[in-house]
Amino acid sequence: MTEPRTTGRRGRAAKRQSAAVKHFDAAWRHWRNPYPPIEQFSTDEIEAIHDASITVLRDIGIKVLSSEARELYLGAGMRQADDQVIRFDPDLLMDLITKAPSIVTLHSRAPGRDVVVGGRNVGISTSAGSPNCSDLVRGRRPGRQADFDDYCKVAQAFDVIHLLGPVVEPQDVAPNLRHFGMARSVLTLTEKVPFVYFRGRQAVADSHEILRLAHGLTQDELIRTPVSYSVANSNSPLQLDELMCRGIIDSARAGQMMILTPFTLAGAMAPVTLAGALAMQNAEALAGLALSQIVRAGAPVCYGSFTSNVDMKTGAPAFGTPEYVKAAFASGQLARRYGLPLRSSAPTASNAPDAQAAYETQMSLWGALMGGANIVLHGAGWLEGGLTVSAEKFIIDVEVLQMFAELFKPLEVNEATLGLDAIADVGHGGHFFGTQHTLDRFETAFYSPLLSDWSNFENWTERGSVDATTRAGRIFRETADAHEPPPMEAARLEAIDDFIARRTREGGADIER
Amino acid sequence: MTEPRTTGRRGRAAKRQSAAVKHFDAAWRHWRNPYPPIEQFSTDEIEAIHDASITVLRDIGIKVLSSEARELYLGAGMRQADDQVIRFDPDLLMDLITKAPSIVTLHSRAPGRDVVVGGRNVGISTSAGSPNCSDLVRGRRPGRQADFDDYCKVAQAFDVIHLLGPVVEPQDVAPNLRHFGMARSVLTLTEKVPFVYFRGRQAVADSHEILRLAHGLTQDELIRTPVSYSVANSNSPLQLDELMCRGIIDSARAGQMMILTPFTLAGAMAPVTLAGALAMQNAEALAGLALSQIVRAGAPVCYGSFTSNVDMKTGAPAFGTPEYVKAAFASGQLARRYGLPLRSSAPTASNAPDAQAAYETQMSLWGALMGGANIVLHGAGWLEGGLTVSAEKFIIDVEVLQMFAELFKPLEVNEATLGLDAIADVGHGGHFFGTQHTLDRFETAFYSPLLSDWSNFENWTERGSVDATTRAGRIFRETADAHEPPPMEAARLEAIDDFIARRTREGGADIER
Repeated sequence: MTEPRTTGRRGRAAKRQSAAVKHFDAAWRHWRNPYPPIEQFSTDEIEAIHDASITVLRDIGIKVLSSEARELYLGAGMRQADDQVIRFDPDLLMDLITKAPSIVTLHSRAPGRDVVVGGRNVGISTSAGSPNCSDLVRGRRPGRQADFDDYCKVAQAFDVIHLLGPVVEPQDVAPNLRHFGMARSVLTLTEKVPFVYFRGRQAVADSHEILRLAHGLTQDELIRTPVSYSVANSNSPLQLDELMCRGIIDSARAGQMMILTPFTLAGAMAPVTLAGALAMQNAEALAGLALSQIVRAGAPVCYGSFTSNVDMKTGAPAFGTPEYVKAAFASGQLARRYGLPLRSSAPTASNAPDAQAAYETQMSLWGALMGGANIVLHGAGWLEGGLTVSAEKFIIDVEVLQMFAELFKPLEVNEATLGLDAIADVGHGGHFFGTQHTLDRFETAFYSPLLSDWSNFENWTERGSVDATTRAGRIFRETADAHEPPPMEAARLEAIDDFIARRTREGGADIER
Repeated sequence: MTEPRTTGRRGRAAKRQSAAVKHFDAAWRHWRNPYPPIEQFSTDEIEAIHDASITVLRDIGIKVLSSEARELYLGAGMRQADDQVIRFDPDLLMDLITKAPSIVTLHSRAPGRDVVVGGRNVGISTSAGSPNCSDLVRGRRPGRQADFDDYCKVAQAFDVIHLLGPVVEPQDVAPNLRHFGMARSVLTLTEKVPFVYFRGRQAVADSHEILRLAHGLTQDELIRTPVSYSVANSNSPLQLDELMCRGIIDSARAGQMMILTPFTLAGAMAPVTLAGALAMQNAEALAGLALSQIVRAGAPVCYGSFTSNVDMKTGAPAFGTPEYVKAAFASGQLARRYGLPLRSSAPTASNAPDAQAAYETQMSLWGALMGGANIVLHGAGWLEGGLTVSAEKFIIDVEVLQMFAELFKPLEVNEATLGLDAIADVGHGGHFFGTQHTLDRFETAFYSPLLSDWSNFENWTERGSVDATTRAGRIFRETADAHEPPPMEAARLEAIDDFIARRTREGGADIER
């Protein structure tokens, strides 16, 4: 593991500026979407989807594989049908959903890095959950702890990344110990808000304890202070497994944010019609979110949407499709109907960090952001429907995210910006390069790209005709190499390392997958 | 030149389906944008930009290099300042603008291919005006007539291309004859609505005559029947040159659609502030559009927006930037304020058909379409800020355009699409592949890609790990090779060829550039 830079209990080193971050801009750390969300459906149509999902929950129900979760549902007034199926009372269900907060603040270890989830706020996370990683130099390979650390280092350099996902699985570490290294790396290499994986009660508890130590909180303070997020996927159609139920329960008890995301691929695990797939997404989301509110009213949660479609010729999942964009717009309407924050994503099915990856990801991202997403997971690096995280793709995505951060900055219209004096001075057929109006503003007037090459063809050719993907790989490597760990109090780091050492000696966590 | 397929005066061959067009879908030929446009500014801010542009026109004026245009402006009540500057009476100017139609129908030679410009309708044109063309096999090279013809052939195969621009300059043809070959190719190889280049009075008149013959119209009928479009660029800042003035006058007289597009690059030919650049764009657009209405009230026109920014380090133009997207959103608001159709574009500054080209173009395209554009020029093939048209980029763009055509199709929410019966049948933890609900719909449920590869990594690797750009080049070549010319009545083709032969003998057109 890389050694983090530690500070005394009261000391704090001056904020480091990575080479890749040109100048600090609060708008990049705290996105607010100025545009009203795009709506796919009329209010009546959204109500019809809501009604259908309520009918599903009441008459068909959710198969709940965890006896603890079934008991919690039953205690809240729901009914158990034959087998393990819970059927929902619509009024009781909606009462539970109204208990969930509309806005959640995820606290960062570093000042000015909190992520507000809800309203017009938007937080971006890295790619998550890939078994493999790839870059143009070393190719595609199983993930290792060193790869995970590289993605942490690069994510730390970019202010448009606000949360850190389980980017790649460190397969060189035993599964029962894997959560220790991942938590330690995120906390010591970055100031981003970390994830907690739902991999069983012990692993979740270990992760929460490491977070508590990193933030210097008491147990009670942690419960009142969301400092992490987790994702629970329902096992579509209409099923919640043991592991996810436990995670939902544990995160609600620990006061940490849980995103309930149904994996409703239209045509496979959900109806081939988008209206039907969305009704199923909504039913599963409401059921899982209700469980968290049964455990603790007001537990921080987020409505997760991931509805896409499959290729009907092969059954392969597709992302960034027109159907994906429509589902993203509609999911925003559903989340807002319940006053819940919305999680969306920026995925692609492309196998290479190429033009397809760029256009599919951007279709997804416009769908997510213009649909009103508050958290965009898989915002940087995702490839192959999530089976690989790519270094080049990570940088391509960061460039587009920075463009969105700039797009979201409001424009001023006033006497100075209308510039009538400058227009009069330049007159007919001149140019504005040398005017005072330009000189006063040119340094910050426009977005300055990280990756895009705007030179002319001759200059670009002279420099070797290097395409965007190859340039992205170089930027990734340079950024990782330039990383300096952010400060952490020595006592906290020691406490974390002591805890990890003890739990490692105890055999780590019983991992269930 | 390729020989077109001719039919008897009354005969018409059955509509050919290109291999690349899977099935006919009216929604691809006639786009209607179902989403309300995204607005960048408040109504007050738009009024402030309007007011600033009116102040510019009244107090600073437009330098008009054509004496004929100056006389037309003076005859309509405007004033001439010293030199060649026309200053505008705001009330008279706005009276002229209200005479312009809000909707223009551009008639195609083929049934079902008319392009309606205005309202929620959207028409897409190819890239235009490049001196060079490129593909991965032959590299970058000066355009030739054969290249121009290839782009016509490929455009004809795709229903999401509605208009055909001057894709690439045929530099192997003498400038005074170039418009003959281009017009003939567009009319015989495609059924798309063609452009007319403003390259002097004779060339414009020749082009209109060829169009008249192709459509079998009388002179009077042509004036009442828009069958082509042209672009007039103001010479920003605040200047209209001889050639553009003549084109505006000639197209208004001929009843053909003219798009007035200021070339307002913020920081170079326009103020560095977007509000100022938009005020200048608006002033130039209103001035040029007014000229057309002076010539003939109700002449078909379109409000053109192309405001972007330059790289302030080098002065190089940039496209698809956050600033570009904001200007596109704002331009839609301005065009709608005047009840005018809006032209926008999908440009990129990338030198290669790579990830940068894909993400910059898609930023531009979302800006254009969600800004409410009615015509998107440079919709397929554009590279290097317009200096090259690329075969691979053309196909990448067509794929994204097809995705938008599908996105724009409304979704139905009803008992059948909500699919409660199917959800009940599948139950918990099953799948929907084999259900009747899926079987009834799977063939047309989702967009089927032209270029995107959704296979898994192993299959993709086995097939040679071919990236999207390389696949696009193959699709371009196969599509061009599979081209069959659409039908044209033999008598009309003969009339066109006789006209071109005579005008060629007369020396062609005096070309002014």
